[in-house]
Amino acid sequence: MNLGIIVYMLGWILKVEGLLMAVPILTALVYGEREGFCYLAVAAVCLVLGMILSRKKPKNEIFFAREGFVTVSLGWLVLSVFGCLPFMLSGEIPRFVDAMYEIVSGFTTTGSSIVPKVEELSKATLIWRSFSHWIGGMGVLVFILAVLPMAGDYDMHIMRAESPGPSVGKLVPKIRLTAKLLYTIYFVMTVIMIVLLLVGRMPLFDSLCMSFGAAGTGGFSCRNTGQADYTTYQQAVIAVFMLLFGVNFNVYYLIVGKRWKDAFHCEELRGYLAIVAAAVILIAVNVRFLFPSWGRSFHEAFFQVSSIITTTGYASVDFDKWPEFSKCILLLLMFIGACAGSTGGGIKVSRVMMAFKEARKEIGAVVHPRSVKVLKFEGKPLGHEMLRSLNAFIILYFFIFFISVLVVSLDNFDFMTTFSAVASNLNNIGPGMSGVGPMSNFSARSDLSKAVLIFDMLAGRLELFPVMVLLSPGTWERTWAVLGKRGRKKGNLH
Amino acid sequence: MNLGIIVYMLGWILKVEGLLMAVPILTALVYGEREGFCYLAVAAVCLVLGMILSRKKPKNEIFFAREGFVTVSLGWLVLSVFGCLPFMLSGEIPRFVDAMYEIVSGFTTTGSSIVPKVEELSKATLIWRSFSHWIGGMGVLVFILAVLPMAGDYDMHIMRAESPGPSVGKLVPKIRLTAKLLYTIYFVMTVIMIVLLLVGRMPLFDSLCMSFGAAGTGGFSCRNTGQADYTTYQQAVIAVFMLLFGVNFNVYYLIVGKRWKDAFHCEELRGYLAIVAAAVILIAVNVRFLFPSWGRSFHEAFFQVSSIITTTGYASVDFDKWPEFSKCILLLLMFIGACAGSTGGGIKVSRVMMAFKEARKEIGAVVHPRSVKVLKFEGKPLGHEMLRSLNAFIILYFFIFFISVLVVSLDNFDFMTTFSAVASNLNNIGPGMSGVGPMSNFSARSDLSKAVLIFDMLAGRLELFPVMVLLSPGTWERTWAVLGKRGRKKGNLH
Repeated sequence: MNLGIIVYMLGWILKVEGLLMAVPILTALVYGEREGFCYLAVAAVCLVLGMILSRKKPKNEIFFAREGFVTVSLGWLVLSVFGCLPFMLSGEIPRFVDAMYEIVSGFTTTGSSIVPKVEELSKATLIWRSFSHWIGGMGVLVFILAVLPMAGDYDMHIMRAESPGPSVGKLVPKIRLTAKLLYTIYFVMTVIMIVLLLVGRMPLFDSLCMSFGAAGTGGFSCRNTGQADYTTYQQAVIAVFMLLFGVNFNVYYLIVGKRWKDAFHCEELRGYLAIVAAAVILIAVNVRFLFPSWGRSFHEAFFQVSSIITTTGYASVDFDKWPEFSKCILLLLMFIGACAGSTGGGIKVSRVMMAFKEARKEIGAVVHPRSVKVLKFEGKPLGHEMLRSLNAFIILYFFIFFISVLVVSLDNFDFMTTFSAVASNLNNIGPGMSGVGPMSNFSARSDLSKAVLIFDMLAGRLELFPVMVLLSPGTWERTWAVLGKRGRKKGNLH
Repeated sequence: MNLGIIVYMLGWILKVEGLLMAVPILTALVYGEREGFCYLAVAAVCLVLGMILSRKKPKNEIFFAREGFVTVSLGWLVLSVFGCLPFMLSGEIPRFVDAMYEIVSGFTTTGSSIVPKVEELSKATLIWRSFSHWIGGMGVLVFILAVLPMAGDYDMHIMRAESPGPSVGKLVPKIRLTAKLLYTIYFVMTVIMIVLLLVGRMPLFDSLCMSFGAAGTGGFSCRNTGQADYTTYQQAVIAVFMLLFGVNFNVYYLIVGKRWKDAFHCEELRGYLAIVAAAVILIAVNVRFLFPSWGRSFHEAFFQVSSIITTTGYASVDFDKWPEFSKCILLLLMFIGACAGSTGGGIKVSRVMMAFKEARKEIGAVVHPRSVKVLKFEGKPLGHEMLRSLNAFIILYFFIFFISVLVVSLDNFDFMTTFSAVASNLNNIGPGMSGVGPMSNFSARSDLSKAVLIFDMLAGRLELFPVMVLLSPGTWERTWAVLGKRGRKKGNLH
């Protein structure tokens, strides 16, 4: 393990985090809040510590997938530990487990909160929570790749570990340019959303929070009532943009390049839209009796479906009170998730589609034993490597899911609460059902459950492998051995 | 599709079913019940129809995996349709959906019932329900293979389609001998269990029902109170034998051959016992406060764990009242299921272990990119074919599971009821939790739900593929075309 380069990257992460804290600091300045000093102090610590760690670039540039996975998962841990300090310092969320839960929920774009009444928080903290969604949505390391002049093989490994989806969609051959393009599209779309909300007379502060959350497919609210009190126009803008941020960013790149035909030939996009349409229709019919008109019923169904499939987690209505059928559809959407290469979580539409094709092919092999079919997705054949990693992902996913349900069930809440809490956190959605429904929160969970759910959120956001590699004893075997030797010999670490 | 041979096999199934109805007919004779005439009538119909269909062996002996899958799934349908006729004729379960649900639950060794008070049923019907477990446990087609002097390739394809597990454990090179050996072990173990129960002063009728159910890992009871009123000794015998019938029958073959070392080196057996031990300890500690002593706590935990992991579904206590943690462990065991090559259902211990190894290997490939590891199970390398079919199985399994939950949720029961009803039926267990707990039954479900659950039970027992192949349009494409031509030309069907 090349520890030098990992520590160097962690330094950069801290420096960037310190700079990003300018947002809550400025907010505190505008609103004259004392909490701003807490952010200032932590930002200073981040910057100083970051500069020390990234003082000089290590000479050893060996960087494999393993280093990529460890950098990303350690990076996210460091980001979260320092990101939650202001919550504790300001006394707004005094306990470490709670503060950590809140910020991990932010960075992983989950959006489930342990704060019962968010309006009691300072504006600085509210904006930091929402901004953490925006940072985590596209990925902090991808951001560093976009701004840092780095050479070497390792940008690809980092990109692969941090970006959601079974394969990294390199827009252009150069990773750095890809990262820049992604962030540009992301930034422009966020600005458009803010403007549209302002046009609909939403206050600037709310517009910022809502847009950061929707862009990152996060889900933190800045109102106690969630999104229920916004106007129909405002809700519609939010719903449409949630859906847009759940689309594979490749599609936007194609659209920018005016390659309309290619964009709409994207198999995943069509699958995603088909699932959304089916879910909206089924739910709208099922909940029709709860609303005064078909229009309202479709509006609410669309908002909730868009919010859940993109794993955002906003709620314009308490869908926990909906019939079981609608709730089960939403639960199913939680697992499917958004498109790969978007800011959304979950298993991802492309993985679900590939898995479906794989199973169908296996049945076909029995029916037509002599036919040789090649599995294709997006027009390209699915390689052996890709399928292996897809299958391992699905298996690992259900293992983590079931074990988490088991541990969280120790809290002895009803099954829907336990099941949907894990589903919601592992898929980075936010609200679940029953005891963790959209109008409830996660504060009643035990510390053990919170710890498991923190793990689930990180595992879900980084798509399992980085976290598992970090925790795998094999990863550290040689490092321990070398560190032991170094202790005795004061030699060099390679 | 070779329809001739399939029809021929269906004829044999009907003949065998007619003969097996001797058991309820004799029971009716002993107890002087009028319901015996219903069984007599249906048996006669089965025998006559069976003889007509299997009058002469077709010349076309082409028989591929496809034919095997279709034979088995159609065979089980025919078996069920005729098997449920006595329930309807006798008026004990007058509606077709209900009668079909009950008998499919019997043959698939599920054991969930739509009868609220089983003691109101005739003894003939009670024994037919339990006997259907015994028939379905080892498989009716395997039975036919064991007794029929058949030549040709197709015995292997049938065996593969009907026997549970990722691969068929051929005990000896000849399929027919393997089938005979399996049935002999099965029969002898059932007899031992009956004797041990009789020694413990259980009435003969109960001993027969309990042993048929445990042997097939079924779960129908002949008492309203399930297994709660039996003595501790009787419960212990049942619990131990449930566990034994969940073991891969290969192990018994090795033991009979005095190859003790090989038997205990069976990786699946060790995994199975480890899971049982862990589950019993966790649950016993968790439910300790409900019982007067540690001994009782362990006894109840062992009975329930043994019943659920083997997918039998007996209950010595209303485990739906246990804490959520214990219930979640039981739910998890429902999915894992028993060993391959046993009479139990579920995903199977070996599949779970293989999947776990597969995921671990994928993580290992990141940690040590240059190491080349071969996946092994039971000391043998896992081939590409096997892994592909394993992955397709797991994917298909969760697809069917989620879609079923969605449809059953239309009944609008609480989530635990819906979720555990599907889990219980797809894994052929019997009772679920909450509204379908061990002291409840399935009578409150809608006809649509019952139909879906009937499908799930069959899909679960036959391990998905046969049923999916039967339903796959591709299977019938050429048959329709040929049938159409035949209608016009009166030609031959090949």
